[in-house]
This record gives sequence, C-alpha cells and structure tokens, in this order.
Amino acid sequence: MKNIPVILMGCGGVGRQLLQHIVSCRTLHANKGVRLRVVGVCDSKSCLVARDALSMELNDTFLTDICRIKSDGLPLQTCIDPGNYEAFPYPESMRKLTDIATRLAFALIDCSASSETIEVINQAISLGCCAVLANKKPLTCSMEEFDKLFIQPRRIRHESTVGAGLPVIASLNRTLGYVMSEVEDGKPFSEVVKAAKGLGYTEPDPRDDLSGMDVARKGLILARLLGHRMDMSSIKIESLYPDKMGPNAMPLEDFLVNGLPSLDDDIKERIKKASSNGNVLRYVCVIENSRCNVGIQELPKESALGRLRGSDNVVEIYSRCYKEQPLVIQGAGAGNDTTAAGVLADILDLQDLFP
Amino acid sequence: MKNIPVILMGCGGVGRQLLQHIVSCRTLHANKGVRLRVVGVCDSKSCLVARDALSMELNDTFLTDICRIKSDGLPLQTCIDPGNYEAFPYPESMRKLTDIATRLAFALIDCSASSETIEVINQAISLGCCAVLANKKPLTCSMEEFDKLFIQPRRIRHESTVGAGLPVIASLNRTLGYVMSEVEDGKPFSEVVKAAKGLGYTEPDPRDDLSGMDVARKGLILARLLGHRMDMSSIKIESLYPDKMGPNAMPLEDFLVNGLPSLDDDIKERIKKASSNGNVLRYVCVIENSRCNVGIQELPKESALGRLRGSDNVVEIYSRCYKEQPLVIQGAGAGNDTTAAGVLADILDLQDLFP
Repeated sequence: MKNIPVILMGCGGVGRQLLQHIVSCRTLHANKGVRLRVVGVCDSKSCLVARDALSMELNDTFLTDICRIKSDGLPLQTCIDPGNYEAFPYPESMRKLTDIATRLAFALIDCSASSETIEVINQAISLGCCAVLANKKPLTCSMEEFDKLFIQPRRIRHESTVGAGLPVIASLNRTLGYVMSEVEDGKPFSEVVKAAKGLGYTEPDPRDDLSGMDVARKGLILARLLGHRMDMSSIKIESLYPDKMGPNAMPLEDFLVNGLPSLDDDIKERIKKASSNGNVLRYVCVIENSRCNVGIQELPKESALGRLRGSDNVVEIYSRCYKEQPLVIQGAGAGNDTTAAGVLADILDLQDLFP
Repeated sequence: MKNIPVILMGCGGVGRQLLQHIVSCRTLHANKGVRLRVVGVCDSKSCLVARDALSMELNDTFLTDICRIKSDGLPLQTCIDPGNYEAFPYPESMRKLTDIATRLAFALIDCSASSETIEVINQAISLGCCAVLANKKPLTCSMEEFDKLFIQPRRIRHESTVGAGLPVIASLNRTLGYVMSEVEDGKPFSEVVKAAKGLGYTEPDPRDDLSGMDVARKGLILARLLGHRMDMSSIKIESLYPDKMGPNAMPLEDFLVNGLPSLDDDIKERIKKASSNGNVLRYVCVIENSRCNVGIQELPKESALGRLRGSDNVVEIYSRCYKEQPLVIQGAGAGNDTTAAGVLADILDLQDLFP
C-alpha cells in the first residue's frame, strides 16, 4: 500500500470539500493501493499538525470536525483535541511545515487564495516534497519565481488552477460565461450581474470577476505552460467596468446601485451590433504565439464558444494535430466539488514519487 | 536525466509515426529531463534488438531507416546494419523480449493490431516492465486476462486505445462519424461509405468499421475502466449491414458493388423519420450502469452528439460532478499522428517508474 502524507493549506470551500473527498474515498483508494495520510491542516491563522508527523495522522473524525468548524466560519484554533495534534500560529506554522519537510516527503496542497504560500511551497519542493495547487497566485508571480516552482517539474501539479474539474489545464470564468450568455437574451447587464451574485457565481465583490483578472491569471498560467516566458503585464485585459468604478474609486454598494446600471446601454449596443453580423459576444482568453489577450470578442453563433450557455466553460485547442477543427473541451466550470476532485486526482497522480 | 528504455511492437502507421515523434522530439524531451532509448523494434515477422540492451540503442538514423523500409511495405528483416543489432524471427522474438525483461525494466509499446501480444505484455509487466498500448485487442480479452494486465495498475497505460489523440479514454469511430453526418445531407449511404474508403478513413474492408466492432471494443474497455466486469458478449452491437453481407458470406468487391447500395433506402428512411422529429442519427456507444449498447440512435440536432460533423469524435460524460450538463470532449478522432502523440504522452507519463 502506497502511503502519501498530505498537508493542506486553506480550509475554504475547496479545502473542506477535499478533506471530505479524502475521507469518503478511503475504500476506493485502498482498492487502488493508495492511502492518503493527512498530517496537517492550515488556515490563515494557524496550522494543526499530527504530534508525530512521521507516523501519526489527523484521523477522519477530527477531519470531519475541522470541516464543520470551518464551515461555521470559526478559526482552526477552535478545535480542541490536545492528544492528537499540536497547533502552531501563523507565521510560525510555515516554519513548522519546512521543519517537517526536512524529515518527511509529503504532498503540500494549496487550496488557499493567498499569494504568501509560494515561499513554503518552494522550500518544501526543494526539500523533496511535492505540491498540488488549486491556488492560482503562486503561479502568476514573476517568471523567476515560477521557474523555481518548476525546478522539479514532476513534483508540482495544478490542474485545478485553470480547469476546475475539467480534465485540462484551461477554462474561462464561470461568472463571465453566465453574464455573457444571459445579456444576449435581452436582460440588462446590471441585472444579470446582480443575479449572478445572488446565485453565488461571483466573488463577494463582483468586480473581481468583471475586471477580467481571474481569466487573465488562468491565461498567464496556460501561456507559461505553453513555454511563453511572460508576466501579467504582457497580457491585454479588457475590464467590463471603467477605472473610475474600480474598487479603489467606488464603494461596492455604490457600484451595484449606480455604477453597474450606467453600463447597460453600452453592452446592449455591442450585442445588437454583433447580432446584426450573426455573431454573439463572449468573454474569452486567446493565446496565440506569445500574445495573450483577455476580453470581449464577437464570435460566430455556431462556434463552440458561441454555443456556450450559462456557466459552462469551454476550451478550444488548435495545434498541429488539431489544425482545422479544434479539440474542444466543455463542461461546468468552477465549483468546489469539481475543483476538489481535480486536486484529489493530482494528489493520486503523485503516487509514483512516494515510497 | 531520466532514461526510459523502449521496445516497440508494430511498425504500422502509428508505430512509425511514434518512432518519428521520438526522433524529432529529442530536444524537447531533453529539456524536460527525459530520454527515450529505443532498444528494440518488432513487426509481425521479427524483432530487431540492440546488441547490448542494457546500454546500447537503435540510433536515430537506423530508426528513420526502419520507418522508410516499413512504409515501403517491406519486412523489418530488410534492414542491414549488422554492427548495431541482432534480429530474432517470430516467435523466438517474443522469448527474447521476456529475456531482456529479466535484466532491464523497459516500456513495452504495443502499436500492433494483434491479439497475440497479451502474453508478452503480461510477462513483461510481471518482470517489472511497463506497457503502453495503442492496440485494443489485449484489453478486450477475457476479464481474467484483463485483470492480470492491471495487476500493477500504474505500469500499464492505454489512453490511445479509445481516444486516439483526445485527452480521454474515449471516442467514437471516425468512419462512422463521417458516414452518419454525410448521409444526413442526403447522400446515399453506399456512396458515402465509398467516399470514406477513398479518403482512407476506413479499414481496407469497410465492413470492419460498419460492423460496429471497433466501437464495441472501445466501449468494452471504457466499461471495464468504470469497474464493470463484462465481456464482449455482454455488449449489444448494431451492425450497419446484415449477416448475409458479412466478410464470411460475401467477397469485398461484391459487397461494395451490390451489397452496399441495397442498404441505401433503409438508411434514407430512418433519416427521414428522425428528421421529422427534429432529430438526427448518430452511431453511438452508450454505457450506463452495467449496460453497454453500440448502434444507431436518434438524437436531438442541438445535442453535442447531434452537432457533430465529419470525422470528429465526441464524448459526453455524465457523473456526480456533471449531472445536468455533461462534460463534453470533442475533436478529430483517429489518425496516426494524434494516436502516436497519445502513445508518446503515455510513455512520458511513466517516467517516475524509471530510475
């Protein structure tokens, strides 16, 4: 039986779902000859680590408790079970992880949304650990930092950073997919955005999605995977709101009440124009040669992207093998469940690197 | 630098394309820290093996020669370069492979279309080797033989057996995809099949495709991957010609000239009926629970399968994560180039199992 020691950073929706998957898939994994031993779990405030990381683990009851506590919005420190683990406050917690890495090769899972995790990931990899990322931020840092992460390319996996559950490193943004296909049916932009927010499709501040930054991050990661040495600054990003309505210039409430509706007419006009050409508007990321652009494009109604409805994602890949007709991959985009399933697949795929 | 020793069985289109990929991707692979060392190449008649399999290899000039000779329709034995390798006639060649496996862990690549390779694959795996299959036949044997192949599940890969270049273990049949979408445009079935044959989409005898056996093989492999313990006999297969026109009852020429055209009216009638329901006909494989059916289905024009044109393949996956909208993967189906690329990806993915 392969034994993969796991340390999780981040107990948000994806992290919790991953813990639940790990617990509920024990039999399935055992049948495949693998056992995931959860040695530590961290949130932004602290880290809980099994007393003896080399042989002990956080048991399934305790992991289930963690999920419950975190989903109630409480910090990890709320857990009380002193026999089982030690707690280390941040940032000492990060030093503790490095310390464990000197004695044990583990898989470090980053399900946080922090840009601070890159250092501990780098150290862990250099000490012989593996890393699985659902967090995009470490991968959209400078090219130099990026190169360091991939110094042992087999030890780092990040399928979920751009594809959620899709079996590719690629995808668009759920919010923008939903917004673009809904406005097409004649609904005002502002109302569609508010509906998307109501459905939980957007970040708490929908401008985080409407700015195109999330798509741009995925684009950058993809472009780098294709071998292009570029930074965020080389990507042309079209925001769906003007700078003067940005988070630094306008409070969220003001944006929702006054800013958004003032954008309706412009979007309606663009849709009308596209429609008169038999086209539809889609928010897309195009990577071609060493160029990466993110923004609204007019596309034929009948293309894979044009046919896209609701919050589905689609990726079209043109390559030497797929020259005329692209390889198309399409399915539900984000979602904690699919993302966590992608993370879990990445972890299992590391098994040959463990004794 | 990882060193993966490789032995290839089968020098047809896919095998030759694989050798060409290996030779032309040397720099790319070196940049990723991997080197593929081709130790032996077999066709149905014989096997050429480097004199000292532990350290020598068939060099790139020689591999290119092999491709040229085989693409001229000549047997491997035609190669003359006695300093470099030893030749073993079949079946001694298979014993030679087992002999090498006792001393060297290599990746055994099956690009043949033979049902005889399963024994040497089983032996190689039990001796510590890995196997990559583009050949479907070893995977559609009895459940007992299938289980033996997967006794070391990480050591066997076969992405290309059902998906050609598509990044999934799944696909339809190129010929049938082409045929079904062309007849829809009003062309007679018999003419479309002949056109497909002319385009090189079909097997030399198009009945090999029209029988549905190729799709059924893929269906069986997929169903087994999903955990269903079934055999070919449990699959309901709809052939596009009646038994009395089968290869044992009617010569190929007779089938093309007289058999095929007699089928036109029936197909035309079925298309008309489907069309009156707003549907189209597609040749599909449906796996649901432990049932696997292969044949013509009436499907909505607007579904992913219904929209399929030409020789593209499409796979729809419904699962817990993809409940309402399926995960859809679509792209060119077969083709030596994409299949060989899939085989190569499988080989590279074995690298962690090599020292």
